Amino acid sequence: MTRTVEEHQQAVLGLLRYSSAFADRTAEMLPLRAARGRVLAEDLRAPVSLPPFDNSQMDGYAVHHADLDGSEARRFSVAPPVPAGAKPDVLLPGSAAPIMTGAMLPEGAAAVVPIERAVPSLFPTTTQYRNSELTVELPAVEEGSFIRRAGSDVAAGSIALEAGTLLGPAQLGLVAACGLATVSVRPRFLVLLLSTGDEVQEPGTALAPGRIFDANTTLLTTALEEAGAEVQLHSIVADNPEKLREALQSIGRPVNLILSTGGISQGAYEVVKQALADSSVEFLSVSMQPGGPQAIGTINGVPFLGFPGNPVSALVSFEMFLRPALSTVTGIPGNRVCLPARLTEDVRSPENKHQVRRGLYTDRTGQGEGIGDVTLLGGPGSHLLHALAGSNALVHLPVGTGTVEAGTPVAVWLLSELRGGVQPLHPSNPNREALT
Amino acid sequence: MTRTVEEHQQAVLGLLRYSSAFADRTAEMLPLRAARGRVLAEDLRAPVSLPPFDNSQMDGYAVHHADLDGSEARRFSVAPPVPAGAKPDVLLPGSAAPIMTGAMLPEGAAAVVPIERAVPSLFPTTTQYRNSELTVELPAVEEGSFIRRAGSDVAAGSIALEAGTLLGPAQLGLVAACGLATVSVRPRFLVLLLSTGDEVQEPGTALAPGRIFDANTTLLTTALEEAGAEVQLHSIVADNPEKLREALQSIGRPVNLILSTGGISQGAYEVVKQALADSSVEFLSVSMQPGGPQAIGTINGVPFLGFPGNPVSALVSFEMFLRPALSTVTGIPGNRVCLPARLTEDVRSPENKHQVRRGLYTDRTGQGEGIGDVTLLGGPGSHLLHALAGSNALVHLPVGTGTVEAGTPVAVWLLSELRGGVQPLHPSNPNREALT
Repeated sequence: MTRTVEEHQQAVLGLLRYSSAFADRTAEMLPLRAARGRVLAEDLRAPVSLPPFDNSQMDGYAVHHADLDGSEARRFSVAPPVPAGAKPDVLLPGSAAPIMTGAMLPEGAAAVVPIERAVPSLFPTTTQYRNSELTVELPAVEEGSFIRRAGSDVAAGSIALEAGTLLGPAQLGLVAACGLATVSVRPRFLVLLLSTGDEVQEPGTALAPGRIFDANTTLLTTALEEAGAEVQLHSIVADNPEKLREALQSIGRPVNLILSTGGISQGAYEVVKQALADSSVEFLSVSMQPGGPQAIGTINGVPFLGFPGNPVSALVSFEMFLRPALSTVTGIPGNRVCLPARLTEDVRSPENKHQVRRGLYTDRTGQGEGIGDVTLLGGPGSHLLHALAGSNALVHLPVGTGTVEAGTPVAVWLLSELRGGVQPLHPSNPNREALT
Repeated sequence: MTRTVEEHQQAVLGLLRYSSAFADRTAEMLPLRAARGRVLAEDLRAPVSLPPFDNSQMDGYAVHHADLDGSEARRFSVAPPVPAGAKPDVLLPGSAAPIMTGAMLPEGAAAVVPIERAVPSLFPTTTQYRNSELTVELPAVEEGSFIRRAGSDVAAGSIALEAGTLLGPAQLGLVAACGLATVSVRPRFLVLLLSTGDEVQEPGTALAPGRIFDANTTLLTTALEEAGAEVQLHSIVADNPEKLREALQSIGRPVNLILSTGGISQGAYEVVKQALADSSVEFLSVSMQPGGPQAIGTINGVPFLGFPGNPVSALVSFEMFLRPALSTVTGIPGNRVCLPARLTEDVRSPENKHQVRRGLYTDRTGQGEGIGDVTLLGGPGSHLLHALAGSNALVHLPVGTGTVEAGTPVAVWLLSELRGGVQPLHPSNPNREALT
């Protein structure tokens, strides 16, 4: 059975949708600081309004409702100052109270005049306040000027954040502003990860002849955790179908997904394929390189995906199929930013496959270019982990591509944000007038 | 003193460069799984070659060096199979050994013929192996075909990863492939965070009149941790300059940066400004909105930044100044992806300021558009935390912008990856032929 990339993306998404329903675990209540990167479990209603009270938008003078008529500047007697955090005295007509940004508007006040429009344009000193004859000249002002109304950001009782919202700095800041110290989040998506193969050995041991160290467990654990999932590790399973079947039967805690690497191809010792020969799991070929062999199905009703065993194939499989589907079912943004970039060399890819190469994307913002460059690292070989580790982008050469000349734009997915340096403020054109 | 955004970006970068040298803390040795998002402390040399030995790139037949001459297909006797993970027997001339992907090449073997080119094109079964007269017909093959050479990815003793490399899935996968179970990482950049203001109260308490809950501590802690920094919290400091001075003097553990919020503006009760009046800290105005008031300097030699107290101003200050500088000094990628997007409404911004608005960016990939839309959320007000929490992008309206009509492209920074759904494979054009 052969599938296109898009068909398998849809199949994996369907499996994960089933999976979330299958293992619906309970929400957790976490302190705000521990909730970064988690997803809100239920609509959060604001227990207070934001702002909680009418307050001043500026450092300035609060003036009384009765003093709003007229269009001329006039002189006010200076009332006691209103610092932020205090409950102010009632304001009397004819007087103006120095008021600080964020301070509560006194009863009777109906507008604020910014300090720079007052004469004098500096607040009186503490010593000057002892002089009861202090006055200030203020221009005419409209009702409501420079006042932030209670509830103008969020009204008490309204939904401040919807269920399913990803909790980042601004969202958790809002929860804190609402006065809540804890928040209810959805459980992480739990993945049981199994690395298979007689040749695979744990890092930190002495390497036997013919063996290699297990890169996939670390690689996929890191990738899954980065995407917000929780990983439960299984020890490496040897090429013994009976033992693998036992391992799969012994899964206790309900998991959302079992993910294996290796043992699903056309060889004579394909442990996953052999162990699951009598199951509903499908072993198929996706027209993609690397990552062509794929397995998908359920084991005793538990969703299952099998990735190929080469580390580059495993990561490409993760990025192409699992990461976007995870993002959809968990609500954690996970779609890679997709940009065009010009190839720095001629490339050939197989016409009948969607080839995914690894490369180094270079931004050309700041050099006045609307499009960046991408330099391929390593060949198409799926064992070239070093080249993958030096890459910051996946380069797509879809079915039908064949030969591509240097300078041609191709689609790249950025694997990380770009390195520091002063941030670009303009995406594609250093000439600000032309852009805005 | 007034600065442009670019000038203050450079000033903050300079401070953080000094800061990293100032508090140069020691590297940590971590298990691989705990090292995600950390930065490699020193060059990592591969203790083994990758691959560790010559191995087969395909499931197929290994043939002997002596059998490479000739251009005709010929018949071989079938040797015992070579599974991955085993040390194979020596291969004799005239025989071909079934060999699996990744399996060690037998001594004497010089090429591999993929199974699909063999006649028969299926490996013998275990029962058939017991029949000693098995043969297979293989086409002529060139030396080295379908062999992955030992060290072709990484040679033993060479640098597999350079100091300063961010450790993500591929990099940690490579460390594991090298057989290492731990890795030496740079210490996190340590920030002491102080929220100031009489009006500010811890979430989880009962709100007194005139007070607001502290959003900044949660917001900036989350933002700093997201950018890879470690945060040490100070309890909220009231508007008492003497107490703040005491708090600053009592900082024990060496920190890379002290970051405060609030108390740096033009009001009559600016606690940070008053406490640091006799210090070298500068209080200045950046031509940016929000986030105009900024403080920068050192306190007893410890680098210091003061952000304004409104949560939106604090986050915009972080994104514009601290995040990019942190990325540069720590080596953790932190530059926001900068894209053009069309405004969905007319906008006015002050001509003499770089206005940073918050908005919702909508990708138009898949609809055949080369550029997305951005809808502004909330007004320019710096207290609109709810609007910020609903945004996924910062919208730049640089100095000189003034009025911008709907449909005009402006620069946006993406604050997160985009939501799931099937991943776009083409950045700007659904017509694959036109793109590649």
